[in-house]
Amino acid sequence: MASIGIGLIGTGFMGKAHALAFGAVRAVMGDVPDVRLELLCDTPADKAQTMAEQFGFARATDDWKALIVDPAVDIVSITTPNMLHFDMALAAIAAGKHVYCEKPLALTLDQARAMRDAARKAGVKTMVGYNYIKNPAFTHACKLVREGVIGDIVHFRGWVDEDYQANPELPWTWRSTIADAGLGALGDMGCHLVSMTYGLVGPIESLIADMQTVHETRPLADGSGRAKVENEDTATALVRFANGAQGSISTSRSAWGRKNRLAWEVHGTKGMLCFDQERLNELQLYRNDGPTAKQGFTTILTSPEHPPYGSFCPAPGHQLGFNDLKVIEAAALLRAIRDNHAAYPGFDDAFEFEKVIHAVALSAREERRVTVKDM
Amino acid sequence: MASIGIGLIGTGFMGKAHALAFGAVRAVMGDVPDVRLELLCDTPADKAQTMAEQFGFARATDDWKALIVDPAVDIVSITTPNMLHFDMALAAIAAGKHVYCEKPLALTLDQARAMRDAARKAGVKTMVGYNYIKNPAFTHACKLVREGVIGDIVHFRGWVDEDYQANPELPWTWRSTIADAGLGALGDMGCHLVSMTYGLVGPIESLIADMQTVHETRPLADGSGRAKVENEDTATALVRFANGAQGSISTSRSAWGRKNRLAWEVHGTKGMLCFDQERLNELQLYRNDGPTAKQGFTTILTSPEHPPYGSFCPAPGHQLGFNDLKVIEAAALLRAIRDNHAAYPGFDDAFEFEKVIHAVALSAREERRVTVKDM
Amino acid sequence: MASIGIGLIGTGFMGKAHALAFGAVRAVMGDVPDVRLELLCDTPADKAQTMAEQFGFARATDDWKALIVDPAVDIVSITTPNMLHFDMALAAIAAGKHVYCEKPLALTLDQARAMRDAARKAGVKTMVGYNYIKNPAFTHACKLVREGVIGDIVHFRGWVDEDYQANPELPWTWRSTIADAGLGALGDMGCHLVSMTYGLVGPIESLIADMQTVHETRPLADGSGRAKVENEDTATALVRFANGAQGSISTSRSAWGRKNRLAWEVHGTKGMLCFDQERLNELQLYRNDGPTAKQGFTTILTSPEHPPYGSFCPAPGHQLGFNDLKVIEAAALLRAIRDNHAAYPGFDDAFEFEKVIHAVALSAREERRVTVKDM
Amino acid sequence: MASIGIGLIGTGFMGKAHALAFGAVRAVMGDVPDVRLELLCDTPADKAQTMAEQFGFARATDDWKALIVDPAVDIVSITTPNMLHFDMALAAIAAGKHVYCEKPLALTLDQARAMRDAARKAGVKTMVGYNYIKNPAFTHACKLVREGVIGDIVHFRGWVDEDYQANPELPWTWRSTIADAGLGALGDMGCHLVSMTYGLVGPIESLIADMQTVHETRPLADGSGRAKVENEDTATALVRFANGAQGSISTSRSAWGRKNRLAWEVHGTKGMLCFDQERLNELQLYRNDGPTAKQGFTTILTSPEHPPYGSFCPAPGHQLGFNDLKVIEAAALLRAIRDNHAAYPGFDDAFEFEKVIHAVALSAREERRVTVKDM
Repeated sequence: MASIGIGLIGTGFMGKAHALAFGAVRAVMGDVPDVRLELLCDTPADKAQTMAEQFGFARATDDWKALIVDPAVDIVSITTPNMLHFDMALAAIAAGKHVYCEKPLALTLDQARAMRDAARKAGVKTMVGYNYIKNPAFTHACKLVREGVIGDIVHFRGWVDEDYQANPELPWTWRSTIADAGLGALGDMGCHLVSMTYGLVGPIESLIADMQTVHETRPLADGSGRAKVENEDTATALVRFANGAQGSISTSRSAWGRKNRLAWEVHGTKGMLCFDQERLNELQLYRNDGPTAKQGFTTILTSPEHPPYGSFCPAPGHQLGFNDLKVIEAAALLRAIRDNHAAYPGFDDAFEFEKVIHAVALSAREERRVTVKDM
Repeated sequence: MASIGIGLIGTGFMGKAHALAFGAVRAVMGDVPDVRLELLCDTPADKAQTMAEQFGFARATDDWKALIVDPAVDIVSITTPNMLHFDMALAAIAAGKHVYCEKPLALTLDQARAMRDAARKAGVKTMVGYNYIKNPAFTHACKLVREGVIGDIVHFRGWVDEDYQANPELPWTWRSTIADAGLGALGDMGCHLVSMTYGLVGPIESLIADMQTVHETRPLADGSGRAKVENEDTATALVRFANGAQGSISTSRSAWGRKNRLAWEVHGTKGMLCFDQERLNELQLYRNDGPTAKQGFTTILTSPEHPPYGSFCPAPGHQLGFNDLKVIEAAALLRAIRDNHAAYPGFDDAFEFEKVIHAVALSAREERRVTVKDM
Repeated sequence: MASIGIGLIGTGFMGKAHALAFGAVRAVMGDVPDVRLELLCDTPADKAQTMAEQFGFARATDDWKALIVDPAVDIVSITTPNMLHFDMALAAIAAGKHVYCEKPLALTLDQARAMRDAARKAGVKTMVGYNYIKNPAFTHACKLVREGVIGDIVHFRGWVDEDYQANPELPWTWRSTIADAGLGALGDMGCHLVSMTYGLVGPIESLIADMQTVHETRPLADGSGRAKVENEDTATALVRFANGAQGSISTSRSAWGRKNRLAWEVHGTKGMLCFDQERLNELQLYRNDGPTAKQGFTTILTSPEHPPYGSFCPAPGHQLGFNDLKVIEAAALLRAIRDNHAAYPGFDDAFEFEKVIHAVALSAREERRVTVKDM
Repeated sequence: MASIGIGLIGTGFMGKAHALAFGAVRAVMGDVPDVRLELLCDTPADKAQTMAEQFGFARATDDWKALIVDPAVDIVSITTPNMLHFDMALAAIAAGKHVYCEKPLALTLDQARAMRDAARKAGVKTMVGYNYIKNPAFTHACKLVREGVIGDIVHFRGWVDEDYQANPELPWTWRSTIADAGLGALGDMGCHLVSMTYGLVGPIESLIADMQTVHETRPLADGSGRAKVENEDTATALVRFANGAQGSISTSRSAWGRKNRLAWEVHGTKGMLCFDQERLNELQLYRNDGPTAKQGFTTILTSPEHPPYGSFCPAPGHQLGFNDLKVIEAAALLRAIRDNHAAYPGFDDAFEFEKVIHAVALSAREERRVTVKDM
């Protein structure tokens, strides 16, 4: 097929990750359409130009609307702050472009729903940056679950913690506001955990939650006093899955020492699986199988036995990194476009994930059980 | 002071642990009253006699009531199945004996309250077998919290899991009934976790919970069919502490691969502490202190710097075992008797811990927030 | 059989460990002869008396020769500084007593040989305190090796490190002299590692070694200057085993952060076993068995499946401690006496172990390969 | 400066790694010269063409000599089997090209010396693929050593193990011959470990070694019998460093379960550092600093505090992977060319590293101490 033109909006953490992913995906995978790094958008214009040169994009602009309608652009990658996703995604969809958007889809569930509906209607391919579910260790875990290696799933526990808001004296920013940031830890991290529950256990039916703003005010950067933190530092929910399993999910952005602790354990009737993103190349498997005296948790190091690890490296134990996960994600989108099937996770899937985090927030605010499908 | 006479009821898991603890406590600690292993009770009588000889008790009986009123017995150790604690403890208190009772105090909170009230009124010393809080690693953790090493405590998460009921085909026993066993995982293990929250964070004010019987029926041992499991295999609660912290506690007796995973993490405004009983000689400490490039979780191996480790071994890192924790517990009771102060944790304390597990069960049954002090 | 009278010389680290072991062994194991804590020796006399009371010994003395000839004493436990083992053991053997001696047997190999020969000739039972080989995790490892679970053994690596001499400013003591302490790290720790190689791989045939005094002088305690450290802080040897395997053993008493890191890995043609005494209840097993995608190191937590763990505790994962290992050791001696067979490891075995550490020192001094059987 | 043209020979494991590294380096780092993926060589020609398209190279060839003299090629990347390095590198140097060669430089030390001498004389920049020393965790470890954080270095232990030759029934290949493969485990892996000793401790002065062919013959692929394995499966050396430290280095390609266990520990007079490539984003640091009760090994997760981690990802704990290390390596070469200084490690450095592995083999063969500078 013809090569696919990439238009990337944003050059920060995720902007760079997208640029690197599209730059590497064909070399890594081989069996994906070729891509052109066509157009990069950031502000001001000279920054866009500098970064385009660095990232290897052919052209630069400071006008995201121009990028979206650019005829050479087939995929619009949206890596801007969350509050901007909505307008950009809708515009891209309206322009008939495929959309690769960072999570969460939007600040509110209504916006997310509108984005999903627009994408469905337009029939464009969508991909949402739930990177961690692209980890071969995670894919392997899901496969083991599907194969029944740990039996029926009966319980799940997950946590996703970082410490970027742990210091009480970090200054107040727009991230602390509902208007500009929406949810707090739930939106930044909690939705990643939810995306993993879907692969491991299936949909969450209902939940009951609590949440907390650990540091209620933060100092203003200009020294003029303190301002209120409006969104949550921590949230925890008791969840019931559609398959009858129960469990809990929890997130904190004030957890000292945790840098990317997206961790979970899946309890089955025949065994258990555990994972921690801070050791992303390891999967822990316990099976009630064989002599008890030899049983224990087995640490599986990812290897070419766990696709697509082997596309990066033919030797086991050599380790993938965070940016490699984005390559796998980009490949999934490119293949979906080529083969004309839905990419996973697309806006439909992300909307389901994000219903859960909004349900958590609603449950905590209203102190009642919330049924996810009612969101 | 005169030596203290021990009367021990029960020779199973905990009976042996008590016997070993009382046999070793003076040699280990030095500064405790001497004890006499006076009288051992089990049924039938010949078993009692055999075990008395093995455990080094002077005499044996198959009549627990006789043990309790025996004038040579000063402390009555109760290590029988939970359903028997109530009658035995009340009788021992009535006889003016000090009581060392395994947890939980009783099957119901009403019974536990009656036990507490009777002990208070009689003025006898009581100790309840919450062994894990006697671990020097735990004592050190509490000390670090008190000293403010990790700042104010803002979040807590704890789990206590084993797999002794994970196999769906294990036969049904009295342990599955509310009448004879009371609570399930909460009573067996959950209360241990609660006992740790008190030292680390303080009292739990209210909670909301969910619980689950993973294996709803079990085969009858005689092959005549299956019977219902009446109590919970798993339970999880969202908790709010009196000091404003939030968190969660969870327990499962169906968690394959977990053998004694009593684990927790305490989040503070300056750091974090983590622990796992399956590595009981290790404490994990993170402090936001010094250059970020050198920060990380520090694995502290218990040593003579963590009393009373040094009473067992003068060399660091040589490791205490489970039975050593019971020695520390026995020492605390003996010192309380000698010095005429309350032992910790006594019936008063245990009653507070156990209110929480009954609150968890109540909340799960009635699907509502429960205030612990209303229990 | 009649109960066995214990005479214990020494009340320090190992003296207490022996006292605790003999105090607990019958209660723990059941199937061992009963013991009487008959006579305790230390100096001065009042210390001996105080400690006898604490440890539960019937009598005390400050005269070790009197202890040895005391008719109520059947086993003489020798836990004094190494330089005293030789005279005490020979005297005890001459008195027809069974001897339980801490390692190493003696300062020199000639002394050790004389002790072995005397014990052989007298036909008394001997036991040497190589505690770590009594760990159920180690016993299980040896069993797995014997069963061929990891195939033929082809390579071995072991280390035993502590940091008790890591601080350059610790004062000089007799431990730094060859006359009073003999070997340094090799004698304190290295011989423990060697004792493990025998169970896992078998005898060492020859070796070539290097050693090092890291801190060449130490300050005198009286501030009058510095004195020379005569023995080694570290030693490492390349070893060849009788079975054709190769490997290395290494020890350091100057290894900051290591508290009791007696660790090893055994490489087989079908798998690997690894162990670290700082996590003494865990064994790591890798087998090339089943689908590669599920292979990894399995962490086996010791449990009743690993005898005699169950004699201490019927529940898996509850963990044994250092002092428990001495109970297992004491039981082995008592059974050997009862059943009139050799105890393991006795003086014969210890002599073999200690040949290796002296061979290491000899090889390092003379810079040549040393054949162990020539020692 | 003008962009730099890359000519890459080889498209296997390392060929792909080079292609990915050069494809990403400018986007990741920003401050490096731009590169052109100019010419790719493999055989047969159609494979070269296919891979050029996949890797993003402008042109393809099956003639490595043509690649080397191609005027658009500035850097020649050599990723072919080791036996080919010598001819290719000499030709590239003769053509005035910068050379980026995988390790080891050559099959023999004489060849390596000739390569070094030629590069020196020609004044071209050279880089050798000792990837692991480009890990930010390793760079940080070296920095901590230089800053004296763990005091003077007194001991070192290192291991590098994999299991790619652990299975006795793997067929015989050219890798088993001295003529085509040269050294075995030492050449494949041992030299990586040596490269780390240089940064952590400094040059090795002399050593004494042993080595072993674990599986002495292997089945021929055509089923016609078995052939001899000529090179070593394991090798271990006792080393003495120029700074007075001692230690050991060991390697095995028959170590079941080890996938990339390049691990070491550096013992200093004030602390210790440990590392394991299988957890490449973690560094273990122990310091004798502050209250003993809080001391322990600290697990430092790499982060933007450990350059150039931040060039890949601004968030700590997100983890680099193996291929990222090659990007850092490529950047070092590009900067060396731009700034006209030697790249590290160049042929000079690699020659020093490789002297050590040949010294190990010589010492083992001749059973004598070998002084490295005499090689």
